[in-house]
Amino acid sequence: MSDAPAIDAERVIADLRELARRTSDEAGAQRLCWAEGWRSARDFLRELLAEIGLEPEIDEAGNAWVYLAGAREPALAVGSHLDSVPGGGWLDGALGVMGALGAVRAWAESGVQPPRTVALVDWADEEGARFGRSLFGSSAAAGTFDPAELANARDAEGRLAPGVLAENGVELDRALDSRSRLGRLGAYLELHIEQGPVLEAEGIKAAAVSGCVGVERLRFEITGQVSHAGTTPMEARHDAGLAAAAAALRIEGIAIEQRGVATVGEMDFEPGIPTAVAGRASMVVDLRNRSTEALARMLESTREAVSACAAERGCEVSEEPVWRIEPIAFDPELVADARDACEEVAGTAYELPSGALHDAASMAPHVPTAMVFSPSIAGVSHAPEEDTAEPDLIAAIEAFGALTNSRITTAS
Amino acid sequence: MSDAPAIDAERVIADLRELARRTSDEAGAQRLCWAEGWRSARDFLRELLAEIGLEPEIDEAGNAWVYLAGAREPALAVGSHLDSVPGGGWLDGALGVMGALGAVRAWAESGVQPPRTVALVDWADEEGARFGRSLFGSSAAAGTFDPAELANARDAEGRLAPGVLAENGVELDRALDSRSRLGRLGAYLELHIEQGPVLEAEGIKAAAVSGCVGVERLRFEITGQVSHAGTTPMEARHDAGLAAAAAALRIEGIAIEQRGVATVGEMDFEPGIPTAVAGRASMVVDLRNRSTEALARMLESTREAVSACAAERGCEVSEEPVWRIEPIAFDPELVADARDACEEVAGTAYELPSGALHDAASMAPHVPTAMVFSPSIAGVSHAPEEDTAEPDLIAAIEAFGALTNSRITTAS
Repeated sequence: MSDAPAIDAERVIADLRELARRTSDEAGAQRLCWAEGWRSARDFLRELLAEIGLEPEIDEAGNAWVYLAGAREPALAVGSHLDSVPGGGWLDGALGVMGALGAVRAWAESGVQPPRTVALVDWADEEGARFGRSLFGSSAAAGTFDPAELANARDAEGRLAPGVLAENGVELDRALDSRSRLGRLGAYLELHIEQGPVLEAEGIKAAAVSGCVGVERLRFEITGQVSHAGTTPMEARHDAGLAAAAAALRIEGIAIEQRGVATVGEMDFEPGIPTAVAGRASMVVDLRNRSTEALARMLESTREAVSACAAERGCEVSEEPVWRIEPIAFDPELVADARDACEEVAGTAYELPSGALHDAASMAPHVPTAMVFSPSIAGVSHAPEEDTAEPDLIAAIEAFGALTNSRITTAS
Repeated sequence: MSDAPAIDAERVIADLRELARRTSDEAGAQRLCWAEGWRSARDFLRELLAEIGLEPEIDEAGNAWVYLAGAREPALAVGSHLDSVPGGGWLDGALGVMGALGAVRAWAESGVQPPRTVALVDWADEEGARFGRSLFGSSAAAGTFDPAELANARDAEGRLAPGVLAENGVELDRALDSRSRLGRLGAYLELHIEQGPVLEAEGIKAAAVSGCVGVERLRFEITGQVSHAGTTPMEARHDAGLAAAAAALRIEGIAIEQRGVATVGEMDFEPGIPTAVAGRASMVVDLRNRSTEALARMLESTREAVSACAAERGCEVSEEPVWRIEPIAFDPELVADARDACEEVAGTAYELPSGALHDAASMAPHVPTAMVFSPSIAGVSHAPEEDTAEPDLIAAIEAFGALTNSRITTAS
């Protein structure tokens, strides 16, 4: 492994800066999938690959693949996504693609054939920022995407997804054919920014990711009785707004108890005027936990809490599902390797679950998967301020390079 | 007093039903001030007055006055308002005007000159539903209205208040000249529906009103830190939404403690999406109390609660005033008379403060003032369902008639 060609982290960062120069404006990164900025990003990737004699292939879901042929297969896949949210940061997704390129480039420029084929993948539309469906390309390749989800989806300009995808060479109904790519892969590794404050707070430069948390997201509607703010005594009220407020606070306690996170980010009162007791309150609860069992307990306790808070004020509750995904554990052996690589490069063996979803979550059920995180300054992401201190960025890229090489050079 | 001509409550109710027939649609009463439905209501009042040989005068603020000359002055004023909110109920305001007409009519038709002049007044734009300024006509007559408040106000169609008022014969800059009407008045009595659930719950058919509560209404802005719902640990959050929720609950407790009411009817989170911890929360707090001291304590405790709830989550607070009015106590002697009249007619001597404002609040600082309330079924008002059980309506009208006669016939 010490003979394997090392990744050039400085060059990866230089590529990222050039990408940002080409595809950002004063409001941040503008690489919304299926649009001009994203295509420019892919053109730049194509240029960089051409320098090492490689050319990407686009699969039926719009994912870009490059194979550096090794002595053995199945291949080790490395990658992430070039698309960004509108006004996003320079590292989210791009770090993983440019890091993967760095790993491939080290071997390509070494003149030595890698012991194992390396497949670089740039997944299409990870963010789902345009049509509301994230992990599009990777879930299509994993076979968990249903084309019906996008058949009638429209972007902010009212354009239908199938037409926009067709302009980018993707036929929605054929997207699942990208599953054929999976057969050639033996493992998947992804480098990403944490997008949270934990690593920075802990002083960790690079860390292994143990998996992605599960999510239960649902909307509660609490119905009380709208009434006059001046003439309705406190004891005669059925205040749906206060029921929702009390529930939100109890849900916070549930998250702490179950070592997960819970968020009430959307809360609306009706009629929503200062002079009326709220007759209805609507809130979306987002629950996340790395443990399936703990997530189920959070959901159950949340339902109990909302019901109890409503009942205490003589209000009714209804709920509707918004979205859910099971917790996904990455491959324990590969995660251990990632931790070792981080310790080797950065001096600390640290492992954490990801609170956000990543394309790695699509791959994990099919092939051994792991990720490496770099810290995010102040935990900020999806914003132009998104950044990682340069020494940390270098450490994370080098740890990812070392991890990649350990898999390319292992016998199995 | 037993010789005084009695009010005909059945006829008052018949007038109210005819008014509703003329000025309502399937969505409720449509007597928005300065508009067609309101003018129709006034035409109907003019017809009813013509039947007893009286004709209203319109003052500089658009208030309609009718004087039934008595042996003595100052006059006893009786009245309320014909204007309604859009889609309102048949009784709010109209009950007081038709009840006042009933009292005047009883004397006019008796052929006996009343010992004291009776002035019927239909105040203009009590609701403020069109330009946002309630108690327009009565506060102009009381001298507490500032024309600047309406100079640039626009209705929902974008029309400026001065133009709309001019179409109704009112010059905004001369509205305060209506103050001259005040000199002729010795007392003011108003019949109204409660608009709250207290009397119905207590089984009271008619009650004396001791005054109008004071109001402190203000907007709080809590600023925390927007962050990712998945990647931000609970202990690293500065959730402005939860700070607002906690504050709303504490404010409820403050209202109960101070025997007032407090309402958070408007609450907004930013960015207001399920996947982000709220970085900002805005809420309007409406505090009401009959006691000036208790209202001041509520305000102080509310500020402390919001500050504490924000500080506990590392958030900042700012506030801005929205509206305020001091508690207004009606005349103790006149309130006692009203209580006696209610007891005489309906069998219970009951007194309560009004949680809503009324034109009587404009008059109270200038002349002895009192009100009589009828119950509101389920406390509902400002809606087509607004109603009072007919026996209660009759009792309240008769109590008002008896109270009115007691003041017309007393020597002082």
